[in-house]
Formats: sequence, C-alpha cells, structure tokens
Amino acid sequence: MHQSNYIFCLDFKVRDYECDLQGIVNNANFQHYLEHARHEFLVSRGISFSDLHKEGLDLIVVRVEIDYKYPLRSRDLFKVCLNVKKHGNVRILFEQDIFRQPDYKHVVHAVITGAATRNGRPVSPDDILKKLCL
Amino acid sequence: MHQSNYIFCLDFKVRDYECDLQGIVNNANFQHYLEHARHEFLVSRGISFSDLHKEGLDLIVVRVEIDYKYPLRSRDLFKVCLNVKKHGNVRILFEQDIFRQPDYKHVVHAVITGAATRNGRPVSPDDILKKLCL
Amino acid sequence: MHQSNYIFCLDFKVRDYECDLQGIVNNANFQHYLEHARHEFLVSRGISFSDLHKEGLDLIVVRVEIDYKYPLRSRDLFKVCLNVKKHGNVRILFEQDIFRQPDYKHVVHAVITGAATRNGRPVSPDDILKKLCL
Amino acid sequence: MHQSNYIFCLDFKVRDYECDLQGIVNNANFQHYLEHARHEFLVSRGISFSDLHKEGLDLIVVRVEIDYKYPLRSRDLFKVCLNVKKHGNVRILFEQDIFRQPDYKHVVHAVITGAATRNGRPVSPDDILKKLCL
Repeated sequence: MHQSNYIFCLDFKVRDYECDLQGIVNNANFQHYLEHARHEFLVSRGISFSDLHKEGLDLIVVRVEIDYKYPLRSRDLFKVCLNVKKHGNVRILFEQDIFRQPDYKHVVHAVITGAATRNGRPVSPDDILKKLCL
Repeated sequence: MHQSNYIFCLDFKVRDYECDLQGIVNNANFQHYLEHARHEFLVSRGISFSDLHKEGLDLIVVRVEIDYKYPLRSRDLFKVCLNVKKHGNVRILFEQDIFRQPDYKHVVHAVITGAATRNGRPVSPDDILKKLCL
Repeated sequence: MHQSNYIFCLDFKVRDYECDLQGIVNNANFQHYLEHARHEFLVSRGISFSDLHKEGLDLIVVRVEIDYKYPLRSRDLFKVCLNVKKHGNVRILFEQDIFRQPDYKHVVHAVITGAATRNGRPVSPDDILKKLCL
Repeated sequence: MHQSNYIFCLDFKVRDYECDLQGIVNNANFQHYLEHARHEFLVSRGISFSDLHKEGLDLIVVRVEIDYKYPLRSRDLFKVCLNVKKHGNVRILFEQDIFRQPDYKHVVHAVITGAATRNGRPVSPDDILKKLCL
C-alpha cells in the first residue's frame, strides 16, 4: 500500500487529549481524522464545506463503515489517504485508509458515503461532482 | 420500533457543544453516544470497562457501521438502544439504534463489532460473554 | 457547601470517552460541563442559546478562570452548580462549582465572564439580564 | 508581539469539527490547543507526558486562566506560543498566547498553572524543572 494509490493524503500526529483511558486514540476521534482529511481534500478542489453551508447546501455523511485494524498511541504520526467515486445518482463514496508513519502499518480502513442536501432535502451533488471531475 | 425490542436503552440530551457549524450533532459524537450506552450496558451486567483495562483486558471495537438517518439538533432528547449477540468464537456484536424522543424518529442504526484483547493480543471473551449470558 | 447556595444545579455522570490517558477527565471537558450547565440554566429562564444565535445575538465567553481541585474518574457522578451576577454594564459573571456526588467533594471552582455580541460587535445584554432578573 | 518573545511556538489549523453552532471554535477546544502545545514543548525538552504517567508521575493542571480576545473560524491558521517559569516550590507557570496567522491577531491569552503528583500526591517537580532549566 502506498500514497500513490490515493488521490489525496494528509499528515497528522496524535495529540494526547485524543487518547482515552486505554492509552489509545478513542474510536470516535478517527471519525474526526477522516472528516478533516475529506474536508481538506474538498477545499483542495475548491469546495469549501462552510461556504456551501452558508449557501444552504450541506454535504452530509449518510453511512460510515470503519474497520479498526491497529491502534494509534500518543504522538504517533499517521497519514489519512482517500479516493472518491460517484455512487448511483446522488451519492459520493470516499474510501479512506489510515497508515501509521513511517512504517505504513495499516490502522484503519473506512468507506464513507456522502450525500448532498439543500435545506434538509436531498439534491443531486452535480456542482460538487463537477469540481471533483467525477 | 419500541424500547421493548431491546435489552438496554439509555436516555440522552444533545449538548450544544456536540453540534458543529451545520447546527447538527457532529457525526463523530454519535460514536460517543453509542459507546457510552454500550459501557453503561456492560456496567449494568457487572462488567466495568476501566476495571477490565486495569486487569490488562481490553474490550475493543474492531468494526463500526453507522447509518445516519436523521440529524439531531441542539437540546434534542434521544434514546440509545441496543441488543447484543455472540459472533463467531471471539467477537461480540452490538446492534444499536438511536431514536429521537418523544416521537421515536429513527436517527441512527449501527452495528458495532467488539473483540477482547489481553495486552494487545486477541483472546476469547468468555468471561464477558458469561456475564452477558451469551 | 450545599446545593441551596446556588440558583441552579445540574447532574452529570462521567462518560468513559471524557477520560484521557491519565484515567481522569481531561481538563478541557470540564469546560464542556460548565458550558452545558450554563446553557441549561439559560434555557430554564427562557433564553435559548441557539435561538439567540439565529437572531444574530451571541452570548460569548470572554474570560475563564478554573481551579482544578480534585479529579473526576470514569463513571463518577457530579453536580455542576452556578450563580450569576451582572458585572459592569456589559458583562455577566457566572460563578460555578462542581461537586462529586454523593460526597460533595469539591472538584472545580470556576468564574466565567460572558458578554453579548450582535454580528460580532459588543452590545448590552439587557434582554438577557431582564430574563435573568439581574 | 512576535514569535521571538516565546521559547516555543507550534502551528495549527482549525479543523471544522472544532467549530460549534456559532461557526467559531468552541471555547473548550482552546484548552486542547494549549495543552497540545505544552506537551509538544515538554517533549521537545525530553519530557514525555505519557512516559511520566507510566512511571506514576503526573503533571497536572491546577489552574487555568484564559482570556478569549478574538474568535477563530473554520480553517484559520494559528500559532500557539508559550513561556514557562517556576512558581513557588512546587508549581510551574505556563504563559500562553494564541495568534491567528499570518496577521498575528491576538486570539487568546492564557496562564496555566501546573503541578506534579506522584500517585495522586503533590511532589516537587525537580526532575521536570531541571530538564526545563528552571
């Protein structure tokens, strides 16, 4: 597995407050990492999550699948990588992997399904998909 | 869908700090809610998560599937319900649903797969399963 | 020290995910507890934090002083109590104490200074103060 | 105000999940930022927070004073800077400032008082102070 298999990767470092009483990163924090990587990816393609929200368009997550393969500990370095594809007419699929650095130990595999809503109702994510060239 | 379909339910209320800039509960916080309900369930059966940790035994989550069906907003009341069953020889499956109160609007459906590890290595969760009568 | 010394108290229970690798509640989470108690207090007086935000009026925290006197651990019960008073023309002062239950061990003493802003500019919090009878 | 006035600075970027329904970074998250900067500073001086914990020695925060001067928003860049000094025989004082980048807008001023405990009892933080040359 290598960074070149993904269209986007982002580097992180575990912060102590993200670890729980087991001494490892709490499961929920991986969703934060995954989300932050997706948002940074979207921004890198000219899609601002908070600007969209101000226009009434929200990109929401409708399904999350996360396989936890290996824990992260205090101050571990890691990389969150992703690929994205269209799924049906209205959904966007993010495949995301987290690798500890520098040994590329596979920490998390995740599939995140997103959808677009305008004022709470599902809409086609055409503008977003165009910017993502999907 | 009703509380009587589950072996355990726990009541919550959305706290403002759990909402993000979309004005709804951030996805990752649902994992906190789901986790807290599981831990409270385990405690209700005499299984203390942090006591187990001190003995070197950790119950860890190996897979999470969450369907986000409807958002929660500031100060919403909701109920996190769960069922549990054995899965193969070494895994425990939690089926969890979140319902907004009092209208039982279905907010989240989740399937959480747990495993037991001792000092980082997988072990049979026999003691835990016995206490859960599985 | 007793509940009757305060105009508002709220009951909580420590959730495991709020504890960090020291096995105690992470310092930042106390700010969450204190905030949630203040918001519930304001709501109990007819002041909705998120409704105000929609009207362009934000109640913001300008200063926090927190003395950490004793740690909270997994599943501890505790009470967050508060008093409130006007401070000068434009500020509101919340005095807050956290007590472990049922022994009333003093966990945290905090003084939180709030101010009102409309579209980012400081305004007199008259409406809010009237509702609080200050 | 400039980076050269501090013995340590660390760069951050606001992540969307750190913002609350007011669209700004939630107050409690600033404590996370401040803590992470302190821990990184200590590590840079050969003091590992989690290693100390394993040896029974905990560096704890006994008092926090935070002045919130200006909000941070989604994706803002900022720098957390600090100075440190001994305070009496058993306490360590961290003075911390947060500046938005690149304009050095002053966001937060904080004074954090730390103490050392061994198995829950206060001890002199001599080893730590020596490593910090205080």
